[in-house]
Amino acid sequence: MNTVLKNLTVIPMTEEKKIFRSDILIEDGIIRKIAPGLHGDIEKDCSSLTAIPGLINAHTHLSMTYMRNYKDTCSNLQEWLSQIFPIEDRMDDEDIYYGSLLGLCELIRSGCTAFADMYFHQWMTARACKEAGVRGFLSLTLFGDEDETRRRLSNIRLDSEIDENLLRRDVAVHAIYTCSAGTYRYAAAWAKEHNAVVNTHLSETRKEMEDCLNDNECLPAFYLDRLGFFDVPCYVAHGVWLQDEEVKLLAGKDVSIVHNPSSNCKLASGIAPVSHFRSLGANVALGTDGASSNNNLSMIKEMRLAAMISTASTLDVAALPPYEVLKMATVNSAKALKADKYIGTLEEGKKADITLVNVQSCNMCPVNDIFSALVFSLDSANIDSVYVNGKCLLENGKLTTLDEEYIISQVYRRWEKLRKE
Amino acid sequence: MNTVLKNLTVIPMTEEKKIFRSDILIEDGIIRKIAPGLHGDIEKDCSSLTAIPGLINAHTHLSMTYMRNYKDTCSNLQEWLSQIFPIEDRMDDEDIYYGSLLGLCELIRSGCTAFADMYFHQWMTARACKEAGVRGFLSLTLFGDEDETRRRLSNIRLDSEIDENLLRRDVAVHAIYTCSAGTYRYAAAWAKEHNAVVNTHLSETRKEMEDCLNDNECLPAFYLDRLGFFDVPCYVAHGVWLQDEEVKLLAGKDVSIVHNPSSNCKLASGIAPVSHFRSLGANVALGTDGASSNNNLSMIKEMRLAAMISTASTLDVAALPPYEVLKMATVNSAKALKADKYIGTLEEGKKADITLVNVQSCNMCPVNDIFSALVFSLDSANIDSVYVNGKCLLENGKLTTLDEEYIISQVYRRWEKLRKE
Repeated sequence: MNTVLKNLTVIPMTEEKKIFRSDILIEDGIIRKIAPGLHGDIEKDCSSLTAIPGLINAHTHLSMTYMRNYKDTCSNLQEWLSQIFPIEDRMDDEDIYYGSLLGLCELIRSGCTAFADMYFHQWMTARACKEAGVRGFLSLTLFGDEDETRRRLSNIRLDSEIDENLLRRDVAVHAIYTCSAGTYRYAAAWAKEHNAVVNTHLSETRKEMEDCLNDNECLPAFYLDRLGFFDVPCYVAHGVWLQDEEVKLLAGKDVSIVHNPSSNCKLASGIAPVSHFRSLGANVALGTDGASSNNNLSMIKEMRLAAMISTASTLDVAALPPYEVLKMATVNSAKALKADKYIGTLEEGKKADITLVNVQSCNMCPVNDIFSALVFSLDSANIDSVYVNGKCLLENGKLTTLDEEYIISQVYRRWEKLRKE
Repeated sequence: MNTVLKNLTVIPMTEEKKIFRSDILIEDGIIRKIAPGLHGDIEKDCSSLTAIPGLINAHTHLSMTYMRNYKDTCSNLQEWLSQIFPIEDRMDDEDIYYGSLLGLCELIRSGCTAFADMYFHQWMTARACKEAGVRGFLSLTLFGDEDETRRRLSNIRLDSEIDENLLRRDVAVHAIYTCSAGTYRYAAAWAKEHNAVVNTHLSETRKEMEDCLNDNECLPAFYLDRLGFFDVPCYVAHGVWLQDEEVKLLAGKDVSIVHNPSSNCKLASGIAPVSHFRSLGANVALGTDGASSNNNLSMIKEMRLAAMISTASTLDVAALPPYEVLKMATVNSAKALKADKYIGTLEEGKKADITLVNVQSCNMCPVNDIFSALVFSLDSANIDSVYVNGKCLLENGKLTTLDEEYIISQVYRRWEKLRKE
């Protein structure tokens, strides 16, 4: 059984501003052919729709959905984490499962086909992903010292849940202010042995940068480099306070920076100068961070904010044009995750991870510049369909794999317990 | 015939964080009673919905919808205006009518019940408003010198289109860089005679402020004060570069500042320090500006951006809390428009301008803080119903007064002609 999406407007994101009318043949979860006049077992008329590569959320904490809009009057990251950590410690497998499912509903509805997750009980997030059909790059997450790290890495329930066509097991070290040097070193060695990709929070706040300078006599990126953390495939989140020499180091080591504008604004961490990072050679991807500091998981909102604060902070509208912002949310995120061989663009041979947008909506018309429209005017209500591995997860705006109402009721039930314990 | 909305969660915006369960009785377009256990001719179960005052867009140019995402690579306001003005000069009555209708679709879908418009051929926007059922504060817009102003104000086709229950005729003077001192003086005198509210763009860019200092030897607000523009009821838009003494002057004259964060970011005008304006005693309202510099008309997106850039620019999460942002979009906007006696809050005796939100959606749950949820997590897809003067304009997410598809087709047809002429 194959499927042809007929008469689409296609934005492949393979080169600047390329856009054309075509059909797309999906077979065995792959984009088999992009050409006009194709036929297949199932044919879907898409003449009013625009196809873009599925959006890729390159940094989130999916099950933090429970704590959406919770304690968000905290004045900075550290104060907020002190409120969040005790609740996370109480979460069990089922909590993670339903929290993940709720996040997956939102990801699908906002046109997202893949995400990189840093959290706990990841085997349950894996189950949720398989049920939803969403592509996950799931990081075993390390905290504390080397002993704790050995314990966490020796007990990998996640491995048995991995379906390689949909999921990948990565390793995350939380941050330099919660993990020892030994943990970073051990994680890198373990990743090398197990062929895993690593990631971490890096230079999110001025305090983190200054503490690192005091404690280690070097900037955070140089500290991690010294520990060998960039000698394995790696990406880092936030990077608000990265200095030029650090950005050049990361670019040279092929370590991408995931921009999290909502979280960085909301937690008063600052505005990462991402157009400047780009000019220094870094690959800049995009992610939402958790719903607790965003307070959504919408790459649509993240693209708009990234564009807005870039112009407001540089006073240069050319610093980060809409095409580049859409690239951050697709190609660059795929690159950051070392997954650009199979996702991030619409090309023959790549996975059929496709988002169909109805641009004939009152908030997007007339479409004078499709890239501006997608970055500045798009709403989740304009997302018509979402495919992952060729499977349709959203059709005419309706979720096909998940029961949103049931999931919401379960999340409320579990959250009542979690917040009171 | 009266209507009772049953079992609502009500956020009246009458005092900080007030929220309760109740019914609302709507009769003759008025909120007649807010209490539990009401009955009426029509009863609608709203047990899953939250009622807020309809959002009020306090500054826009509705028919600029044609130029959404058009020429938005211009590097600043002046360059952009030079691209826009020639097209506006070509617009005729029908262009304005359909451009307005398209904007009204978007306003309704994003929970907005009233808007302040600065544009041309306003009699056609008035017709569109009456068809849509949306409340409009429509400004006759002045450009150029006093002769041109006399001509424009002597030919008021708008007056005959005013339905006082829905529309008001205001007067706008475009800006100090497009209008003479005589125009401001004449407009103020005319407004006094005709009992009209005036408004203008003020201190939007650094260039405007510096040019005013050079040309008039005073800051823009003092220049307008000298011309008597603040001696009639007045509000001003943008105010990005207002200095403390100007803000105090405006506060003293009861002149509100309408914040337009998207447009200010997008056109690289800067970030208005609105929490600081508040601390100086100013009333700060919220508006989208036109779809051409936003590129939406969504107060939902505007609230989120206002909150985000406030925290990012002050590094103080308490500077502009979510409740204050929602206030800007409701109560404060009503105050700015001198309309707070009848709109802006949910209170007995006020107009039944009500927006019903479905917070039981995957992007808003769990609702740990309803004000954070409304400012940070809300999507237009969560707007269930919209009432103006008690008339339902959106029901279960469907427009009841406008044919969106037909309007879009007409806008495309007319825009093809306008852009090529």
